[in-house]
Amino acid sequence: MDTTPQTTPSEEWLRSLRRDLHRRPEPAWCEFYTTARIVEELREIGVDELYVGRDALATGARSAVPDEETLAAWHERAREAGAVPEVLGEFEGGYTGAVAVLDRGEGPTVALRVDIDGLPREESDDPEHVPAREGFRSENEGAMHACGHDAHATIGLGVLRGVADSDFRGTFKLLFQPAEERIGGGAPIAESGHLDDVDALLAVHVGLDHPTGEVVAGVDDFLAVSHFEAHFTGESAHAGGHPNRGRNAVQAMATAVQNLYAIPRHEAGATRVNAGKVAGGTATNIVPEGAVIEGEIRGATTELMEYTREHAERMLRSGAEMHDCSVDIEHGGEAPSAKSDEELVDVVADVASGVDGVDSVVRRDTLGGSEDASYLMRRVQERGGKAGYVCIGTDHPGGHHTATFDVDEDSLAIGVDVLSGAVVSLDRNF
Amino acid sequence: MDTTPQTTPSEEWLRSLRRDLHRRPEPAWCEFYTTARIVEELREIGVDELYVGRDALATGARSAVPDEETLAAWHERAREAGAVPEVLGEFEGGYTGAVAVLDRGEGPTVALRVDIDGLPREESDDPEHVPAREGFRSENEGAMHACGHDAHATIGLGVLRGVADSDFRGTFKLLFQPAEERIGGGAPIAESGHLDDVDALLAVHVGLDHPTGEVVAGVDDFLAVSHFEAHFTGESAHAGGHPNRGRNAVQAMATAVQNLYAIPRHEAGATRVNAGKVAGGTATNIVPEGAVIEGEIRGATTELMEYTREHAERMLRSGAEMHDCSVDIEHGGEAPSAKSDEELVDVVADVASGVDGVDSVVRRDTLGGSEDASYLMRRVQERGGKAGYVCIGTDHPGGHHTATFDVDEDSLAIGVDVLSGAVVSLDRNF
Amino acid sequence: MDTTPQTTPSEEWLRSLRRDLHRRPEPAWCEFYTTARIVEELREIGVDELYVGRDALATGARSAVPDEETLAAWHERAREAGAVPEVLGEFEGGYTGAVAVLDRGEGPTVALRVDIDGLPREESDDPEHVPAREGFRSENEGAMHACGHDAHATIGLGVLRGVADSDFRGTFKLLFQPAEERIGGGAPIAESGHLDDVDALLAVHVGLDHPTGEVVAGVDDFLAVSHFEAHFTGESAHAGGHPNRGRNAVQAMATAVQNLYAIPRHEAGATRVNAGKVAGGTATNIVPEGAVIEGEIRGATTELMEYTREHAERMLRSGAEMHDCSVDIEHGGEAPSAKSDEELVDVVADVASGVDGVDSVVRRDTLGGSEDASYLMRRVQERGGKAGYVCIGTDHPGGHHTATFDVDEDSLAIGVDVLSGAVVSLDRNF
Amino acid sequence: MDTTPQTTPSEEWLRSLRRDLHRRPEPAWCEFYTTARIVEELREIGVDELYVGRDALATGARSAVPDEETLAAWHERAREAGAVPEVLGEFEGGYTGAVAVLDRGEGPTVALRVDIDGLPREESDDPEHVPAREGFRSENEGAMHACGHDAHATIGLGVLRGVADSDFRGTFKLLFQPAEERIGGGAPIAESGHLDDVDALLAVHVGLDHPTGEVVAGVDDFLAVSHFEAHFTGESAHAGGHPNRGRNAVQAMATAVQNLYAIPRHEAGATRVNAGKVAGGTATNIVPEGAVIEGEIRGATTELMEYTREHAERMLRSGAEMHDCSVDIEHGGEAPSAKSDEELVDVVADVASGVDGVDSVVRRDTLGGSEDASYLMRRVQERGGKAGYVCIGTDHPGGHHTATFDVDEDSLAIGVDVLSGAVVSLDRNF
Repeated sequence: MDTTPQTTPSEEWLRSLRRDLHRRPEPAWCEFYTTARIVEELREIGVDELYVGRDALATGARSAVPDEETLAAWHERAREAGAVPEVLGEFEGGYTGAVAVLDRGEGPTVALRVDIDGLPREESDDPEHVPAREGFRSENEGAMHACGHDAHATIGLGVLRGVADSDFRGTFKLLFQPAEERIGGGAPIAESGHLDDVDALLAVHVGLDHPTGEVVAGVDDFLAVSHFEAHFTGESAHAGGHPNRGRNAVQAMATAVQNLYAIPRHEAGATRVNAGKVAGGTATNIVPEGAVIEGEIRGATTELMEYTREHAERMLRSGAEMHDCSVDIEHGGEAPSAKSDEELVDVVADVASGVDGVDSVVRRDTLGGSEDASYLMRRVQERGGKAGYVCIGTDHPGGHHTATFDVDEDSLAIGVDVLSGAVVSLDRNF
Repeated sequence: MDTTPQTTPSEEWLRSLRRDLHRRPEPAWCEFYTTARIVEELREIGVDELYVGRDALATGARSAVPDEETLAAWHERAREAGAVPEVLGEFEGGYTGAVAVLDRGEGPTVALRVDIDGLPREESDDPEHVPAREGFRSENEGAMHACGHDAHATIGLGVLRGVADSDFRGTFKLLFQPAEERIGGGAPIAESGHLDDVDALLAVHVGLDHPTGEVVAGVDDFLAVSHFEAHFTGESAHAGGHPNRGRNAVQAMATAVQNLYAIPRHEAGATRVNAGKVAGGTATNIVPEGAVIEGEIRGATTELMEYTREHAERMLRSGAEMHDCSVDIEHGGEAPSAKSDEELVDVVADVASGVDGVDSVVRRDTLGGSEDASYLMRRVQERGGKAGYVCIGTDHPGGHHTATFDVDEDSLAIGVDVLSGAVVSLDRNF
Repeated sequence: MDTTPQTTPSEEWLRSLRRDLHRRPEPAWCEFYTTARIVEELREIGVDELYVGRDALATGARSAVPDEETLAAWHERAREAGAVPEVLGEFEGGYTGAVAVLDRGEGPTVALRVDIDGLPREESDDPEHVPAREGFRSENEGAMHACGHDAHATIGLGVLRGVADSDFRGTFKLLFQPAEERIGGGAPIAESGHLDDVDALLAVHVGLDHPTGEVVAGVDDFLAVSHFEAHFTGESAHAGGHPNRGRNAVQAMATAVQNLYAIPRHEAGATRVNAGKVAGGTATNIVPEGAVIEGEIRGATTELMEYTREHAERMLRSGAEMHDCSVDIEHGGEAPSAKSDEELVDVVADVASGVDGVDSVVRRDTLGGSEDASYLMRRVQERGGKAGYVCIGTDHPGGHHTATFDVDEDSLAIGVDVLSGAVVSLDRNF
Repeated sequence: MDTTPQTTPSEEWLRSLRRDLHRRPEPAWCEFYTTARIVEELREIGVDELYVGRDALATGARSAVPDEETLAAWHERAREAGAVPEVLGEFEGGYTGAVAVLDRGEGPTVALRVDIDGLPREESDDPEHVPAREGFRSENEGAMHACGHDAHATIGLGVLRGVADSDFRGTFKLLFQPAEERIGGGAPIAESGHLDDVDALLAVHVGLDHPTGEVVAGVDDFLAVSHFEAHFTGESAHAGGHPNRGRNAVQAMATAVQNLYAIPRHEAGATRVNAGKVAGGTATNIVPEGAVIEGEIRGATTELMEYTREHAERMLRSGAEMHDCSVDIEHGGEAPSAKSDEELVDVVADVASGVDGVDSVVRRDTLGGSEDASYLMRRVQERGGKAGYVCIGTDHPGGHHTATFDVDEDSLAIGVDVLSGAVVSLDRNF
């Protein structure tokens, strides 16, 4: 059985596209340049249907959307970077992402989901870091593709080319999802209606500590996750003259942080807490009247996440009370856990073993982290379809989310071959 | 004895000047508009010598100077607000402040120091707050005259008018000091040379919980103070996938904060600690690799401050070590404690009791807070001169450094009368 | 196949023996009454060899031995409770435990290990609590059989009776291990030499949330564990008059506790920390000069335990340093993790399914907790033997280690039948 | 004027009495041996009225009384140490202390209060420590006269001798107060009625960092104080198997301790907090279900103490809630602040300057600590009498409340001379 599509996109095209996206990382709901560039490519490749902006999303389900000012600044930055103005207009207000459809007649509906957002962190400028050395380091200071979503978007477009050039019969949907890092984009895509007729959904991630040449056919045990923002409010006072008149929001926050990480471990499995971003106070000589924790809670199951969240909320409130402050807790994005279906694991493992450059196929592995792909997978599974999450190994010098993360560009073609092969194969095997 | 100068500046002029300064609060070393406006007034009143920028300061003694970018942004803002460009140029790089001299022949050299900087905090927009209601609330968002330095600068200029119009014999120096709130401007003025021939130095503060009509002839027991910035560095990691690979700088910071406030109280008198501004981390799903505390340490004596600082530094280091992080501690501004000389207390008390609108004269009171005027006072006292710190009471609805702080403008004229009267009287009594 | 021995000890005998032991719980290395009672029974049943005190143990490998005074007090208490003086003498100094041997000619050497110590906790006197209601609640205040070791010792003696009455061929060794709760007795038994010729070792635990009638043929995934005592030393001072002269060991301890529980979770599996017993200070008006944490560290693997311990030690030292104290960390007992061998799981599962009263046989389950039986199992496995850990379900109203823990006495006979059946069967199946 | 009484008690008698008391320190309400010994001496000296046990106290006002078992054990220990059984009987149940009266006809009623309890701490056995070297170190392990109350009782008896031998006219009352260290005995003596006719009350303390030969005629600024016990209750669970089922009382306690010491300092003066004695948990492998803090709160004024207490109570509750525990807060002894009256300062200063061995008389000094003598002083002052608190300097190698505290026995005679002189003088000067 030969399931590899005839015409693979060139490695040069993949590399160049990936580097352009890498240079312009954009955080959740600000993927303006990114989506515009994707739409440009989709038009060039040619698709039968194309949904962008509000048409790609259940708009009311978005979460973790930045404020107007931030959105506007990133929108302007995309414009300055050369994004096509007419396309850009449709994304205004943070309606990023796209859904492309190839209609190839009778056959199953197969979907591939890739995520496209960057992270709010500085990229290394160490000359050892390839993007720095070869001139495609982030040009958006304070933002970075530190989780490989530039590679995901690139692989997605490559797969579209591959499927377009194949004898695939059926419908192929390619979903470009925004805001994965904030767990904000999974639900709006899942509830958009675009998944409701999908028979088989694949999602993809590169790396995850697997080297180039290794493919994991089914990733499981996503941690369920929930984001929160806790705003502590006390009262300011002159720190030298009237310390007793203050109610110290930074002390409240520090007490909460100390205890959040000390929530009892659970016998039933892994839990996680992270006070990932904190701030408080205004000046050295003022008792801090405000402080904030932006954090997240995870669990190996949704129940474990909820156990941890219940403790966390009590602790945030107790920390506030400890220093006579109040606290306002806002819930952010949330995602359940998920499992890959055996049928898809079979197909992917089978295809992968025949792909050039693949020297190791792992049937199943666990993720350890969280992913709002789980929203999409659950949607499809609940309606009777099958869903799977595939990992395309890539040598990465720094860990995910660190300043020196990078992908081995040789893995891009492998990703394209494995996934387009799987899509085409599903038409026959399903 | 009639020591009140003949021609007091009009209340209207005082109010209008103060409101203009209030509208444009500028933080430490960014008092570009403020100094320019002061220079404009000095030129109109007429002085014999005028030193600005580098000429007013021992430039190497500045501390807590913001980075170039911040300085440039405030400089540009001052320009846009209409500050005279030619004057502005001299302040570039954060060389703010001014020294004005009236030379009236033989006689003692008497100096008055006023401070001119604002605070980095939001001003209330509650309609109960007079500046909001009457339209002179801060136009520099995130900055506020929440400690009355707008009134101090205004009173200083009023006193200059009063002395200029009097029969004062001797030399009068008027010192406009930047960066008091960051304890950064006292030393550069003290070491500038301008104080080296001063026989009597007065400094002034409004309010301090004394109502309009009350004057404190000698304020004492300034808390010695020392600022610091502690930068914690750990290592980032994916918070869900690899929590064990991180070294959490926010946990280090929180541990330090919890313990800083718990430094043992001292039998010998008051001590203070404040972690006034903290921040850390980059995103909810990344173990925080960096965090910072901007804080301060105070003591009723320099020894008590040093006792507290020694504990604080050990705790900052232990907090870092607790989470396998490193910490870099930078020392900021520092000021000793100080006492007002009895001779000046006598003169001020005597003059104040004859001033219109003064209904209560307190000989001495304690400050509770800190002030880098203590640097100037010590300089003069060490060289054989006398120094005193005067409080002009003013009704203030909110506490110092809070969002609703304001001054009762009726106290401006009282301040001018008491201080110009004292300056003129010193010529005779000294 | 009928593997059940002919003559089972009577339920009445089992109940009465268990209740006597329950009434006299003794903590680690103080099992004087308990061992004496066991020896009395062994003599009555009749064994071929009997090792007690120093002869049962590698004495140098004991850990967590209490101080002389505590040992002496418990020894005296055992004497007063009627333990035979001549036997008692051999245990003096905390040399408790016993090894009994039945020599039945040619055949494999099969061993059964039961642990015999109680816990340092108060037993409930709620009339709902059966031991309280039926008059066999702990008579040793502050100590309790809250983990079922009274049942273990009883089952062990019952199995001996069963094997003695059977046609078993080979050598049967019955090991009564002290100090399991302090992870202090496993190593001394493991290294005593008594295990060096053992072909098959079984260990047993009741309950573990399995109901009466359920048997787990092989328990796995013991958490590796390590105990520690951290002694903090500061300096006392009058808390009112000279707080600054003190160095507060309770603050040091509290800082350490807060952070110990907040050691980062590990991607590779479960970790545990517990500051199980703490104390510090002498009087309300004295700054505490001493404090102690008795705690433990666990991990799903020995590596995970060591990861956690490394963090814990750094935190104990940093907590001390935070308050200018010193800390002395003593390591207590330690146990590796372990797995049951498949061959023994087969035998136990097979036997159990034929035992009266057993209605559910679970082949394998995980422990979640720790056990120093792992030392014995590893010793046997390293020398080529097989080892297994069996759970005999029992309805228990309160959780293990809580004040209302109790066992369902109907499970005693089940335990005896399953284990004696397995021992006898091993002679044939091995 | 010669106010020194004719017949001073011999230095040998003072030393021997003090050493006997030093050897047998007894904590609050357990001063059985001590009171018995005092009564013995009182009978030998001869007094006109003697009140002991219930007759010396407002029994309902006692606080910090230990449990029955502790009282009984100390009572038995006093009996074994040779205390006269018939006297001992009157103290049973913790009714210690005594009031002795000399009636010398017409004249003022003058009172002297001395306290008699020891502290719950180990005494040093360093040979440098005089009581250890010379054989009168504490024989009651775990208890120590670490604050000089052995000297106070001795001086009291010496003063009685001195006054008895003088030409004093009036009534002299000598009050032996129990339970000062627990702030438990001041109120019961104050409210006993014995003070209601007192014209002048003196209280005495040795040391306080004043050397032998120095006398402070009036000590002021006692910190107001309040004791508390906070009992935290959570839920136990197996720390390895079910950490999530526990509610950890030690974490609750540690969180509270960390924050108690971090209560904001107050602009109006000194505050103190001490978590002087803490404990929690039962075993390393059990999640702690209980914990306790015995602590105290002080303030330079009663208001400052109450400010601090309000914060402390909120924090104790928040610490409990943080870990889903409950907390029960019991209030213990409490004492207001106090000031010495000028009239008595005059008399004491005048007499002291004529006493042999006194080379420095300080009119007034502040205490820094707390004292429930303030209850007695306030009682007398409220009823129109005068009250003063005198410090007799003594060289003390270790600080008060430390293991090496000791008094210079040469100061005993000085104390007797100053105080008996003052009592006699008051008859004339009042």
